[in-house]
Amino acid sequence: MSVPTNARQPADAPARVNRVDLVEFVGALLRAAGMGASDTRAVATALVDSDARGIDSHGVARLPVYLDRIAAGGSSATARPVVERENGAVAVVDGRDALGLVVGRFGMETALRLAHQHGVGAVTCRRSGHFGAAAEFARMGPSRDCVTVSMTNVNVAMAPWGGITPLLGNNPVAVAAPTNGPPFVLDMALSTVARGKIRLAADGTATIDAHVALAGLITPLGGPKGSALAIAVDIFSALLSGAATSSDVKPQAALAEPQDVGHFFLALHVPAFVALEVFRARIDQMLERIRSSTPASNFDKVLAPGDLEREAEERADREGISLQRSTWLALLAKAADLDVTAPALS
Amino acid sequence: MSVPTNARQPADAPARVNRVDLVEFVGALLRAAGMGASDTRAVATALVDSDARGIDSHGVARLPVYLDRIAAGGSSATARPVVERENGAVAVVDGRDALGLVVGRFGMETALRLAHQHGVGAVTCRRSGHFGAAAEFARMGPSRDCVTVSMTNVNVAMAPWGGITPLLGNNPVAVAAPTNGPPFVLDMALSTVARGKIRLAADGTATIDAHVALAGLITPLGGPKGSALAIAVDIFSALLSGAATSSDVKPQAALAEPQDVGHFFLALHVPAFVALEVFRARIDQMLERIRSSTPASNFDKVLAPGDLEREAEERADREGISLQRSTWLALLAKAADLDVTAPALS
Repeated sequence: MSVPTNARQPADAPARVNRVDLVEFVGALLRAAGMGASDTRAVATALVDSDARGIDSHGVARLPVYLDRIAAGGSSATARPVVERENGAVAVVDGRDALGLVVGRFGMETALRLAHQHGVGAVTCRRSGHFGAAAEFARMGPSRDCVTVSMTNVNVAMAPWGGITPLLGNNPVAVAAPTNGPPFVLDMALSTVARGKIRLAADGTATIDAHVALAGLITPLGGPKGSALAIAVDIFSALLSGAATSSDVKPQAALAEPQDVGHFFLALHVPAFVALEVFRARIDQMLERIRSSTPASNFDKVLAPGDLEREAEERADREGISLQRSTWLALLAKAADLDVTAPALS
Repeated sequence: MSVPTNARQPADAPARVNRVDLVEFVGALLRAAGMGASDTRAVATALVDSDARGIDSHGVARLPVYLDRIAAGGSSATARPVVERENGAVAVVDGRDALGLVVGRFGMETALRLAHQHGVGAVTCRRSGHFGAAAEFARMGPSRDCVTVSMTNVNVAMAPWGGITPLLGNNPVAVAAPTNGPPFVLDMALSTVARGKIRLAADGTATIDAHVALAGLITPLGGPKGSALAIAVDIFSALLSGAATSSDVKPQAALAEPQDVGHFFLALHVPAFVALEVFRARIDQMLERIRSSTPASNFDKVLAPGDLEREAEERADREGISLQRSTWLALLAKAADLDVTAPALS
């Protein structure tokens, strides 16, 4: 179990796995770590979705640390998040140190329920953990006729604009909306930005040189916009929930310590505002105008937010999910530890 | 009336006006254009607030075009916005082509009322106009114990990422939150960003060269983040209200045509989530940590969002508001047209 099962591939080639097989494998690993069936399915599906959509920084590569945290006691495989407080269209969730993907799903579910009752639902979560890709939760809205916003704080990764002390997280924000086709999805996490056709030296460290910032090299992490946005996300996710702010969120690597991450979810029920069919027709028209507009030199076509991810997902469904070899080996090591059978590579 | 009243100042020197005098002068101009007393006061105060806070791109420099639009019939001085639809914690406002500053104020007032009833209020507005600085409306929240979001679309100013056709507005977003001192205010409009300590060639035109974009020069306007954010603001402001999307919003310069701008306002009543005193103490602590952190080379100190504006406002209250000479001359010309007496410069 500790070596690749397909000897024909070179040692550093990507490992290609069938999507359904990978969901089952990830689910089996989580079950072996003590997680119940419904959470297992949701977490496995969300992680593999991220890989399928090309956001491999937030996919199954994160699973080993989640499993390590469960083993060390910093995260719980069995805890159930609860609505601690509900006032009108607002709720505060206590995540009880469950995995962030479990808490996030519960939080957005609660926001969607409130939005169907009140037109809008706003939910904050505390005592959560790293929740993966913000888009995974925003994407729960469109099939329920909602425009959604999903955000989270994370532990510190960058200095505020003009400073050198890392005090802010690279806190992501995602937005989703229904269309007549696949939902509109925007994910302002660094990973998505870096995967546009730009190649940025995005190394995750803090901005320590204003000249580097001015040259635009670390714009997605630093700069006044990113800095201000990170603070705002902390206000929504941590201050309105009672979670730790980014500067106090424990890193995932502190395996035995609860992270106390905070999330914020907003759901807006489209029919409370305008007729759903009008909304869908207009967003289709807006995105089509963008996609059919003239590309700049160096661009083949103009993409709408989420198009790259959708193309990646179609490819993954056709050809299997391509994982970095190191990710695959780490999963195989966990499989050996937990006595789980790994699928064959395709 | 058509020449500066203070002959000691050189012809291109800034004109310095007492803040209270300027509010009265702007109010008198709006009254002379037919606006009622309460709207007059609100609009004049908001415009002069922007100048006092250093956001002179969104201050009284905008008044001449507002007056021209009223005269030409594209905007109405007397129309009252109405709540067209109210469902639970959600409302849609018909701005009836009143000035954007009147509609924006009404929209945020409605969101604050709903938030006090339901914990959260979400309000969209259609048939509005250019509303000035987004922060002016967000700033209504903190004194009412709310965290607020204010956004608007505007007519097209930039191409989507990868394109050359201007289809998106430089749609601003503002966030405000209560503290124990002056409120936290973030304004992601270009003007605020450009006024940080960066000097950017921000000329308001579309990105037509991917290489320029890659060099980071037009990041605040272009780039995938700005592009995606502009689309999201259109979804909230236009698609959830029935207003025109940025690509169809009429420019202000089309004086006789209603613009059909859309706005989105969100208010979150802090006590529905967490104890207000805890929220205030924690945000104070978070901002203080940022301000007291070590500055990078080239920076005197680390600022929190809104600090520059607050410093500008204190200076304006001490020394008077400094207007560009061209702005002052344009106001004097309007004063002559409308038979209004201008204040002396200080």
